[in-house]
Amino acid sequence: MLAVAILAAGKGTRMKSDLPKVVHELGGRSLVKRVLDAATALSPKRRLIIVGYGQALVREALAAEPGLEFVEQAEQLGTGHAIQQLLEPLQGFTGDLVVLTGDTPLLTTQTIADLVATHRDRHAAATVLTALLPDPTGYGRVFCDRNNQIECIIEHRDCTDAQRQNQRVSAGVYCFKWPELAEILPKLSNNNDQKEYYLTEVFNYLSPVFAQDVEDYEESFGINSRVQLAHAYEVLQSRIRDKWMRLGVTMNLPDTITIDDTVELEPNVIIEPQTHLRGYTKIKSGSVIGPGSLIENSTIAENCRVLYATVEDSQIGAGCRVGPYTHISKESIVGDRCRVGNFVELKKTRMGENTNAAHLSYLGDATLGNRVNIGAGTVTANYDGFNKHPTVIGDRSKTGANSVLVAPIQIGKNVNIASGSVVTTNVEDNALAIARARETIKPDYYDEDGRKKVK
Amino acid sequence: MLAVAILAAGKGTRMKSDLPKVVHELGGRSLVKRVLDAATALSPKRRLIIVGYGQALVREALAAEPGLEFVEQAEQLGTGHAIQQLLEPLQGFTGDLVVLTGDTPLLTTQTIADLVATHRDRHAAATVLTALLPDPTGYGRVFCDRNNQIECIIEHRDCTDAQRQNQRVSAGVYCFKWPELAEILPKLSNNNDQKEYYLTEVFNYLSPVFAQDVEDYEESFGINSRVQLAHAYEVLQSRIRDKWMRLGVTMNLPDTITIDDTVELEPNVIIEPQTHLRGYTKIKSGSVIGPGSLIENSTIAENCRVLYATVEDSQIGAGCRVGPYTHISKESIVGDRCRVGNFVELKKTRMGENTNAAHLSYLGDATLGNRVNIGAGTVTANYDGFNKHPTVIGDRSKTGANSVLVAPIQIGKNVNIASGSVVTTNVEDNALAIARARETIKPDYYDEDGRKKVK
Amino acid sequence: MLAVAILAAGKGTRMKSDLPKVVHELGGRSLVKRVLDAATALSPKRRLIIVGYGQALVREALAAEPGLEFVEQAEQLGTGHAIQQLLEPLQGFTGDLVVLTGDTPLLTTQTIADLVATHRDRHAAATVLTALLPDPTGYGRVFCDRNNQIECIIEHRDCTDAQRQNQRVSAGVYCFKWPELAEILPKLSNNNDQKEYYLTEVFNYLSPVFAQDVEDYEESFGINSRVQLAHAYEVLQSRIRDKWMRLGVTMNLPDTITIDDTVELEPNVIIEPQTHLRGYTKIKSGSVIGPGSLIENSTIAENCRVLYATVEDSQIGAGCRVGPYTHISKESIVGDRCRVGNFVELKKTRMGENTNAAHLSYLGDATLGNRVNIGAGTVTANYDGFNKHPTVIGDRSKTGANSVLVAPIQIGKNVNIASGSVVTTNVEDNALAIARARETIKPDYYDEDGRKKVK
Repeated sequence: MLAVAILAAGKGTRMKSDLPKVVHELGGRSLVKRVLDAATALSPKRRLIIVGYGQALVREALAAEPGLEFVEQAEQLGTGHAIQQLLEPLQGFTGDLVVLTGDTPLLTTQTIADLVATHRDRHAAATVLTALLPDPTGYGRVFCDRNNQIECIIEHRDCTDAQRQNQRVSAGVYCFKWPELAEILPKLSNNNDQKEYYLTEVFNYLSPVFAQDVEDYEESFGINSRVQLAHAYEVLQSRIRDKWMRLGVTMNLPDTITIDDTVELEPNVIIEPQTHLRGYTKIKSGSVIGPGSLIENSTIAENCRVLYATVEDSQIGAGCRVGPYTHISKESIVGDRCRVGNFVELKKTRMGENTNAAHLSYLGDATLGNRVNIGAGTVTANYDGFNKHPTVIGDRSKTGANSVLVAPIQIGKNVNIASGSVVTTNVEDNALAIARARETIKPDYYDEDGRKKVK
Repeated sequence: MLAVAILAAGKGTRMKSDLPKVVHELGGRSLVKRVLDAATALSPKRRLIIVGYGQALVREALAAEPGLEFVEQAEQLGTGHAIQQLLEPLQGFTGDLVVLTGDTPLLTTQTIADLVATHRDRHAAATVLTALLPDPTGYGRVFCDRNNQIECIIEHRDCTDAQRQNQRVSAGVYCFKWPELAEILPKLSNNNDQKEYYLTEVFNYLSPVFAQDVEDYEESFGINSRVQLAHAYEVLQSRIRDKWMRLGVTMNLPDTITIDDTVELEPNVIIEPQTHLRGYTKIKSGSVIGPGSLIENSTIAENCRVLYATVEDSQIGAGCRVGPYTHISKESIVGDRCRVGNFVELKKTRMGENTNAAHLSYLGDATLGNRVNIGAGTVTANYDGFNKHPTVIGDRSKTGANSVLVAPIQIGKNVNIASGSVVTTNVEDNALAIARARETIKPDYYDEDGRKKVK
Repeated sequence: MLAVAILAAGKGTRMKSDLPKVVHELGGRSLVKRVLDAATALSPKRRLIIVGYGQALVREALAAEPGLEFVEQAEQLGTGHAIQQLLEPLQGFTGDLVVLTGDTPLLTTQTIADLVATHRDRHAAATVLTALLPDPTGYGRVFCDRNNQIECIIEHRDCTDAQRQNQRVSAGVYCFKWPELAEILPKLSNNNDQKEYYLTEVFNYLSPVFAQDVEDYEESFGINSRVQLAHAYEVLQSRIRDKWMRLGVTMNLPDTITIDDTVELEPNVIIEPQTHLRGYTKIKSGSVIGPGSLIENSTIAENCRVLYATVEDSQIGAGCRVGPYTHISKESIVGDRCRVGNFVELKKTRMGENTNAAHLSYLGDATLGNRVNIGAGTVTANYDGFNKHPTVIGDRSKTGANSVLVAPIQIGKNVNIASGSVVTTNVEDNALAIARARETIKPDYYDEDGRKKVK
């Protein structure tokens, strides 16, 4: 039986923020949510979040997650003190406890699983996740025997020069036999400069304690500042991009691209520079996205070309051309082989197949059929200042340049709306609708400087 | 006399693609086209492409190139087997054969030329292009005497620790005296785990064989995955950017900029971040491009300012201001000192000099004179649902806001089109054209909430 | 008493430019201006700029700076010759002289101050700023005793292998007791291959001379080419970004972001990738800027969301949503909680609070009240071909889609402008203004192919 506790009570002074450190976002999820998600994938029986500073915000950040137990650490008196708060809620618990910190968002489920597996295989009292750092300066070093049993942990300042050659440090992640830990926790002291209770003191009492090295030391990074947050984001992005490239996605200048870990890509997608794929986005095979596009919670079907566009919460059919400078949002659905061109906005709009809106249009709350052609400058007047109203346009209809469709309105099939017309009533199939003032030409009206002639 | 053979028969499984590996694109040209172009610059007498997997696509990728000989390798049984396919087409050929692989797109003409020169100077039977890799792990090592004559090639797994210190590996590029090679090729065996015929076996028979180190080991990179493809693109871009910076181009954040190798830049051009110059683009002195612009197959003359714009297949005159959020395409030609501003699209449109379209316009199939002023929201209705029609606007004419010009139409010089007018007939010089409904003001119509008053 | 001299007389051939090297821009300021600013912060009594090549341009680049003394070096005969030009203007000066070169824009005030402090503390005749380079190949090495007194400076080519291990090189920045230097300057010789007078020759005569290592060796970089200019920009940007991250700003992909050193950011600002903050820009807490935005000389108040937008010389109130594809410029002022949406341009326009212009609008020289709603496609016709005219729109008024307001014009409060109307006269409070042609529907006009039926 497994319990997981996540330390999430600290402020994180170096973040220079009123927000508790662990609720800062990294790639669309808070730090603590990332740690929790990594642990949750192991299906632990109990999940305890130790909260303190700004606990309302931490609870809110995790509010959507069912079955969490929040444990309050009223004062922040050290990691040992934090875990002492578990004595009551875990009373009678006889399984293993994994201790995580809410500021290590790069830690993977696999690493935690391996830690627990080692812990159990070796019947350890405790197992410490360790990392081999290229530059361990400043960290306490973990010394092990050949079987990875920990012999001692020595603070950097107390190490001899030889000992400082040891690159193995603690990652601050542990697995304990809870009953053994529970017995020792009350004995912790705070006889140190900081007057804090350190969890590491328990290793003086527990035995055997093993070390398990994390494969990629970057997983152990704790976030203490925005510089480290930015670095963690780069590491996370690098992981995600590498994964998709290995699965057959081409990327140009990958370092300028971001992809949330909730995104799905098919092979033979091409991602151009400065493109950002966020949330529950899916891009299908043969599509080319970017440069300079933002796709969020949207699906782009096969063989689309999306250039300098923003697509949010929408679906684009196969073979569409979108952009440059196009904005599609709010559950718009675009059929196959459509063109949504420059300076066109679709909001809550459905397009059939082979339908075009190529220039300077706003279509809101509209439903367009197949083979519709929207003229440049066509606008749906969907808002009367109080409510939004729908516009329906039938198959093969055309709207003229700078025409306005005042919603609610239904335009039939094969209709032609003349350029510059403001249409306020429904138009039946096959009709021409025209609302246009007579044209007057006043000849010989200007001189060569463009000044009105005096007559 | 020189023949060049390019190995292009493999699938490239790790690309995770149905496309043969060598037709993947790198900076606007396929991998194999890049290798071919590097070789073609040496004017070889014969150029043979060994094709197999997906050969229709490889042939298509090189279809524009005259005088190639495609040689089919029906089964892929190793590099030796591939070169055996040349025995028939090169029967009677008495010159040197350069063997290249179609997946090394960073190889330069200079490197191939140096290889051939060394080969001939030293009267070698064969010369092997070698590279000194910082990390040669996994590669077979090439051992030479002081004169660079190869003594042996030992696979990584068969090397002693001392031998593994040798960083020299084969780049898979060779120059052979063809008649000597041709005699040996039939003798190759496939007595190995892979049951493949290795070209390297010929070095057991030929003598003398020399090594020639490539100056920049990155040239020898073979592309086997999308990660390597992305890396090769970075190397290629770094080369191109460095070249232009050395020639007097300023770049801000060069790592975010891409420039095809077909682009020409003059000194004192400034390229801002996130700018992409593609195809046969030329930017002249004093112009500042970007941030965030895409210029493809276009010429930007002197002293232009282009900001957040997409310019395709077009020409921009000197001293123009373009952007932000501007799209110019399809052989548009913009004269000197024009302004093409935000949310303006030009498609197949010519502008004279000192002409402005500053806001929210679509001009398609239009020809504008000098000192024309296009009002915000002006649109050319150039498409009647079946055909595109031209619009002509004379010097010094002005169009009002939200006016529509229904093509085909000719607007003379010094004409003024009133705001909101839809003009469907030609307008002579010096005229005012107005098509506008009378204005009605209904006073005391709304209450303070904006609700229509009940009267 | 302190005098500062900046060497700014060279051409900088490798820049491939007619511009003198020191006037090239780095992050909004010329190289020489950056060096001058770093020195000026020490409040030196005298500031002398030694000019030669292209001196008119150098003088112009520094024209806004009061109290500079320009000293002409008519021929460029070496650094010693350059400093000899100071003999006349500094006649009788008894203080210290700091010598800087105009091409080291990364040098900080702190470093210069430390150099001067050391110089004075140690009663040095001269003090040399030195740098410990990771790769000092090619540079002359500075050899010191334990007290940092310089024993000798040996050119790279004259160093033994052991001497080449010394990584300490001169940064080309010096502090001298001027009276001692002034005595020696006339004695310099040009007995060398270049026939130049080297300033370093004075160290043969002065004593004691101390070395002071710069903390960050990158400060000592001199810019000789565009490649180095690009590198210096990266270093500068890295410094600025790190500073703001440490002060509580979150950045995603910081390497793709640029921030001028004149920008001010509050904690809890989030900067998304590919965003550029320039000039006197200020972003307040809680605002999220980018991706893909350019903010120049503008203030963005608290809790704004700015996405793919260009904002120049303007002020945005708190809680506004701007973008995507929005252009706000020329001293526009946007009140709190406004929406300035896609394809909207504001030029010299003021918006009250809670006012929206969400789509496809151009508002120029306009003043809008509170809770105004600008319909999609609304345009202010503010330019009559000769002059710009103002538009005023009162609180709670609405404009319909594709309406035109022909300026000068005053629209009252609670007014509704009907869609498609061109309004040319003032409209009083609470009125409906409509200018629209009657709508005609011609039924049964088209066949299924969209062709006009022959009747």
